Amino acid sequence: METYVIYMPLVLALVGLIYMTLKKSWVMKQEAGDGTMKEIADHIYKGALAFLKAEYRLLTIFVVIVSVLLAIVSFIVPTTHWLIVVAFIFGAVFSAYAGNIGMKIATKTNVRTTQAARTSLPKALKISFGGGTVMGLGVAGLAVLGLTAFFIFFYWYFMGSSWEAADYDGVLKTPTELMTVVLETLAGFSLGAESIALFARVGGGIYTKAADVGADLVGKVEAGIPEDDPRNPATIADNVGDNVGDVAGMGADLFGSYVATVLAAMVLGNYVIRDVTSFNVEEVGSTSFGFMDNFGGIGPVLLPIAIAGVGIIISIIGTMLVKIKSNSAKESQVMGALNVGNWTSIVLVAIACYGLCMWMLPEYMEMKFFGEDGSGYLKVSSLNVFFASLVGLVVGAVISSVTEFYTGLGKKPTLKIVQQSSTGAGTNIIAGLATGMISTFPSVILFAGAIWASYAFAGFYGVALAASAMMATTAMQLAIDAFGPIADNAGGIAEMSEQDPIVRERTDILDSVGNTTAATGKGFAIASAALTSLALFAAYVTFTGIDGINIFKAPVLAMLFVGGMVPVVFSALAMNAVGKAAMQMVQEVRRQFKDIPGIMEGTGKPEYDKCVDISTKASLKEMMLPGLLTIGFPLLIAFLPMAFGMNNLDIAEMLGGYMAGVTVSGVLWAIFQNNAGGAWDNAKKSFEAGVEINGKMTYKGSDAHKAAVTGDTVGDPFKDTSGPSMNILIKLTCLIGLVVAPILGGHAAHNLTASTPQSIIEVSTANAEQMIEVDVKKNIDETTGTVTALVTTKSKINGAIVTKTQEFFGSEQEVEEKIEALNI
Amino acid sequence: METYVIYMPLVLALVGLIYMTLKKSWVMKQEAGDGTMKEIADHIYKGALAFLKAEYRLLTIFVVIVSVLLAIVSFIVPTTHWLIVVAFIFGAVFSAYAGNIGMKIATKTNVRTTQAARTSLPKALKISFGGGTVMGLGVAGLAVLGLTAFFIFFYWYFMGSSWEAADYDGVLKTPTELMTVVLETLAGFSLGAESIALFARVGGGIYTKAADVGADLVGKVEAGIPEDDPRNPATIADNVGDNVGDVAGMGADLFGSYVATVLAAMVLGNYVIRDVTSFNVEEVGSTSFGFMDNFGGIGPVLLPIAIAGVGIIISIIGTMLVKIKSNSAKESQVMGALNVGNWTSIVLVAIACYGLCMWMLPEYMEMKFFGEDGSGYLKVSSLNVFFASLVGLVVGAVISSVTEFYTGLGKKPTLKIVQQSSTGAGTNIIAGLATGMISTFPSVILFAGAIWASYAFAGFYGVALAASAMMATTAMQLAIDAFGPIADNAGGIAEMSEQDPIVRERTDILDSVGNTTAATGKGFAIASAALTSLALFAAYVTFTGIDGINIFKAPVLAMLFVGGMVPVVFSALAMNAVGKAAMQMVQEVRRQFKDIPGIMEGTGKPEYDKCVDISTKASLKEMMLPGLLTIGFPLLIAFLPMAFGMNNLDIAEMLGGYMAGVTVSGVLWAIFQNNAGGAWDNAKKSFEAGVEINGKMTYKGSDAHKAAVTGDTVGDPFKDTSGPSMNILIKLTCLIGLVVAPILGGHAAHNLTASTPQSIIEVSTANAEQMIEVDVKKNIDETTGTVTALVTTKSKINGAIVTKTQEFFGSEQEVEEKIEALNI
Repeated sequence: METYVIYMPLVLALVGLIYMTLKKSWVMKQEAGDGTMKEIADHIYKGALAFLKAEYRLLTIFVVIVSVLLAIVSFIVPTTHWLIVVAFIFGAVFSAYAGNIGMKIATKTNVRTTQAARTSLPKALKISFGGGTVMGLGVAGLAVLGLTAFFIFFYWYFMGSSWEAADYDGVLKTPTELMTVVLETLAGFSLGAESIALFARVGGGIYTKAADVGADLVGKVEAGIPEDDPRNPATIADNVGDNVGDVAGMGADLFGSYVATVLAAMVLGNYVIRDVTSFNVEEVGSTSFGFMDNFGGIGPVLLPIAIAGVGIIISIIGTMLVKIKSNSAKESQVMGALNVGNWTSIVLVAIACYGLCMWMLPEYMEMKFFGEDGSGYLKVSSLNVFFASLVGLVVGAVISSVTEFYTGLGKKPTLKIVQQSSTGAGTNIIAGLATGMISTFPSVILFAGAIWASYAFAGFYGVALAASAMMATTAMQLAIDAFGPIADNAGGIAEMSEQDPIVRERTDILDSVGNTTAATGKGFAIASAALTSLALFAAYVTFTGIDGINIFKAPVLAMLFVGGMVPVVFSALAMNAVGKAAMQMVQEVRRQFKDIPGIMEGTGKPEYDKCVDISTKASLKEMMLPGLLTIGFPLLIAFLPMAFGMNNLDIAEMLGGYMAGVTVSGVLWAIFQNNAGGAWDNAKKSFEAGVEINGKMTYKGSDAHKAAVTGDTVGDPFKDTSGPSMNILIKLTCLIGLVVAPILGGHAAHNLTASTPQSIIEVSTANAEQMIEVDVKKNIDETTGTVTALVTTKSKINGAIVTKTQEFFGSEQEVEEKIEALNI
Repeated sequence: METYVIYMPLVLALVGLIYMTLKKSWVMKQEAGDGTMKEIADHIYKGALAFLKAEYRLLTIFVVIVSVLLAIVSFIVPTTHWLIVVAFIFGAVFSAYAGNIGMKIATKTNVRTTQAARTSLPKALKISFGGGTVMGLGVAGLAVLGLTAFFIFFYWYFMGSSWEAADYDGVLKTPTELMTVVLETLAGFSLGAESIALFARVGGGIYTKAADVGADLVGKVEAGIPEDDPRNPATIADNVGDNVGDVAGMGADLFGSYVATVLAAMVLGNYVIRDVTSFNVEEVGSTSFGFMDNFGGIGPVLLPIAIAGVGIIISIIGTMLVKIKSNSAKESQVMGALNVGNWTSIVLVAIACYGLCMWMLPEYMEMKFFGEDGSGYLKVSSLNVFFASLVGLVVGAVISSVTEFYTGLGKKPTLKIVQQSSTGAGTNIIAGLATGMISTFPSVILFAGAIWASYAFAGFYGVALAASAMMATTAMQLAIDAFGPIADNAGGIAEMSEQDPIVRERTDILDSVGNTTAATGKGFAIASAALTSLALFAAYVTFTGIDGINIFKAPVLAMLFVGGMVPVVFSALAMNAVGKAAMQMVQEVRRQFKDIPGIMEGTGKPEYDKCVDISTKASLKEMMLPGLLTIGFPLLIAFLPMAFGMNNLDIAEMLGGYMAGVTVSGVLWAIFQNNAGGAWDNAKKSFEAGVEINGKMTYKGSDAHKAAVTGDTVGDPFKDTSGPSMNILIKLTCLIGLVVAPILGGHAAHNLTASTPQSIIEVSTANAEQMIEVDVKKNIDETTGTVTALVTTKSKINGAIVTKTQEFFGSEQEVEEKIEALNI
């Protein structure tokens, strides 16, 4: 029995965290520069801490409120256990802590990168990427550690760490039912993590753009001083913003995706076990239940965390391969180094998936394809499951190429925007919008193909495993992602501390590569969010026990519409939030320019912290409304009709329609906004090196360039605020659905009962020595005419008094017959 | 027996057309001005004819190709009758002819309005609105005439004008099955009409903006001459464009909606009859089938056309009420006059709906709510059906207010965009985008509420009747809509022919009201398209015989994604098309300015027709790709998997998912683009009268105004090309689905058989005097295990030889038992 496998991901996560600590101390030991450099870096570090502190204060309030609500729900609803509150708090704390590690290391690494860039480009890359690695491993390590630890604990707490039927709250439950309780409680951890992501990604997105726009509008445009000029009071806030948005935001986003994906795959794995059990009972005639594997019978449930655990080690290997040798390396070589690391880890994950699928799954599993008509089982081989995971890896890789094509410097779409800039801002905007819109074509075809293929290979378990495999390299992806803003900051520090131009040149090479990885990273993040949401959606349907989501029911169709609208309104709110926050920043900067004597001459000191403060407060305040929209709508849909006495299953279907609407529309708007924003940004950057328009070389300062700058202004909130926020919106929506599912799925038990081997019930009835009390409750569904009966018996079994509730479901006559057959 | 009712809509349509002819000759008798005025009007008229001619040439090719394809399909697929080809051709011709009437009268009325404005504002309104009335009645009259005539013909042809079971192609079919054939064939008329709308709306949208942008870019910006200056070679094309886009495009759009809505309501009415029949057989024990009403048993089928017919007369009454008295009336009085007419007709339609529902429907109908679980019937009263129709009227009215709020001059959203213009084009664009995005909130909540409420009142039949009631005032809506571009043109002619300023002032009052009605008209058009699509969607599901559309099946979910993406890509293609066509226009105008001597001095004559030609050709060429996308995608989804041997019902569900995706996303993008565009337009216009920004009055020519002009440039293709095109996209997609449905729904017959009164079969078996031949074909569905058996018998009944095919459906044993029970 290889049941030790359950501890493997825990160990691997710890290995990752240890490696992270070593890497961190190595980075911290590097020279941190001197004088102004140090001072500026210190300002950024303190600004970042100020944001974190304010964020944590708000988070604490939020976590307390949600915890209390969850606790109340868990006391009212018997299917929800109070431990979900504990899991929720830990999920939030772990995610926040991961963000903390990331922010701190990023704001410590930046100045060290600048310092290294004074002498060596390879060393600058090594340090900046080292900082990214710390961030990546912190996120992945904590995610796997928390998830696995809670799973092991709940598996012990609810199931005694064994796959056997047991009494739970006085009711005999099958192992599948018990595992459902385990995973439902574990969903609290995921909900906690994703809540933090809401604050970090949406709040962070508003922060970074408010600071950026505010700094530019007054600094560059009104006062005519260059970017990153230390005389600009908002410049520190701007640099802090890069870390808040791109480091903490992205980290929390992927932390959430990572946890949610693995969770959803585990939920679906549990139903794979149920299906195989039912198959054995119904078709083979077996009276035993469960799964005869070497992993305590829970191989399909363990597989996703095993992949996640192994992914951490693979990511460490991947990060080790990222290095360059030549001090005169160009962008392409730096990009090449990152690619070597990235591709190696993807290939290694593919190999690991193959090994793990072959090892942990039986050769064939009989699956009922969810939502399919009829009662047929399909034989799915472990090789098919592996193929499904490959689909995820391919999507992760291809989506990055698609993103790069639509947003990359020198590619056709960007060049087209450049051309259209010559006829003014209007045509530039139209071209950018059109580029973002058209880019949804290959992306959606890719997603649709991935859903189809991974489902064809292994049902929704396949879809969830595709997501898991894709997310296995999260640590590596984050290392690449976080490296970008570090290099950006390093350049800013070089500028502000007036270093030798060669220093800025070197950091610019890193920064330029960082811009590309930022765009592809956003592609990865949205792909992960999309697949995660689909997996959560599938888990939701199975949790509630509904047969499917039929959009031919008008209320479901209406909710599909409403769901489709929410991402659009959310995006608008996020964009407006940037505008409002930026206006406050503009006023503060104007005030300082006027009130502080000698500020323009460099003799007066700008009050950086006031700007940091404004950005912090405004961003956290402005994220309230979109946050409320995200959380409030699904709750409203779930509980408002409930208050009007609507059938729970109908509500579950409506909520499912809403979730689908949010996901489909959210993915579209994420791709549209991210790619339009990225393309505008690079169209503007194209003018720095000069571009040919109608046969004439055009540079910065030209009218076409000015038009491109306008496009970039529109693109900034698109790509850094509203676009990436979509990820959180769709995941959080589906997670809230998952947490609400047990409340709606009062009928979920039927679904399980239907596949509960009859033998279990029979065996326990046979053991009854003396019946003490029998209670029969019947309930008739008026629309369908089906009867649900709850038969509770108190009996003496082997000397002990056991209370047992059995459920029967069917037409009135059928139920009567079943109860009679009990002989009680 | 009040069976004459079937002819009533025909008569009412003819009354409408006669009134139209009278109105037309009255308009034509008005003074057409003199000299330059006449000359310019002549250019516009000829330009419009040139566009129509080119469009018809292309249309003919298109209609021939589609007819041949349809003919081939109808020969291969037994469920499709070749008469669908005839219906298709007539649908196309009728819609094209309605467009022709509209374009001709609009381009004749414009100059007459200018002439009238020289002396009297009331007369100018009377003439311009008279032109609009001709257009509105032409569209509505021809739509109802064509639809009713074909219905009467098919009802006679396939059913002998009576609701009885009959042999069809050697198969005994129930009346419901026969009526399905009637309506499937009638769908050809709707498909023809909507195809024309694709050309008129999308092609027209590209035309109008290409001409507009081209004229502005070179004329206003480069040459510095005012709008509508006769020296600008593109100015005629620009004025033609207003008619092509706003008159012909809108007319074809609403013609299509009108026909499709009534058709869908008829399809669903047929299933209401089926449900009542099944109820009578199953629950009451009746052996008769059909519907005991006074309308030949087809009251629910006739009701939608009756409402449409009465709507024509009501619209005539409404148009008569539109008048002002004072020559010094302001915008508000003109708007008030339109409102009186509009609201009166809405109230009258409500009253008419009440009367018709009470008269034509039985007091109670037992409906099976489609897609609902269980087999319960719900008693729906005729009053409920009336309430459902009220829902549609409310939606039509409220959506206009919503649109007006988000796009209206002096309203909060527009003022906000004006404020944001002060910080540049970037912030103006962001504010406009955000306004469009946020406006989806109330609109979608309204739609979702309407779907829910009308469904709750009377199932999907209620949804379709809501749409029908809303569309009943189509003639009135179109009169209001078409009046706008006529007034706009009248102003253009006044400017070009250098009239007294008072003339332009008077036409400006009309034009300004026209701008408001243009925005609200777009709201009405999208609301009608949305409800029409939903009704078509419901009709599609019942046609194919699937139980519903379960998005928890991965292929269906994948298609929901793909469907959601199509409107986004379509919009991008349409926007790019405008850009390309405008560039050609720019080059032509530049060439003329250079090559034609004395053109700027007014001594050389610009070659207007060349510009008209470019706009015409470019628009028709550029609409190919989006058109192909619209038509190609659903066909690909239907036939590609079929080629791979996929189950037809699974394909039907996938296609349904696609249709839902297109509809939800299309409605969102339509609202977003229309309202953003409208808001930008009016933000720009606000500067004409002057606006207060940060306490300072700001006018035309200011930097803020320039920023607003940029916003308007982006908004133009949004509101006039891509936004309105969404209507066609979603309707055409659902219509193609409906036409494809019989091909997919090989199983549709089961659905019907299930509710075929057993008595019919029994009676006919009892009559058999001698059995000549028996042929039994069985088919087992491998996934569900259900058996379909076709029992074909040749027997002598009453001396004649009758071939009869009966279908049985169920488990193998059930089917065997049923066949045995036949005693053959």
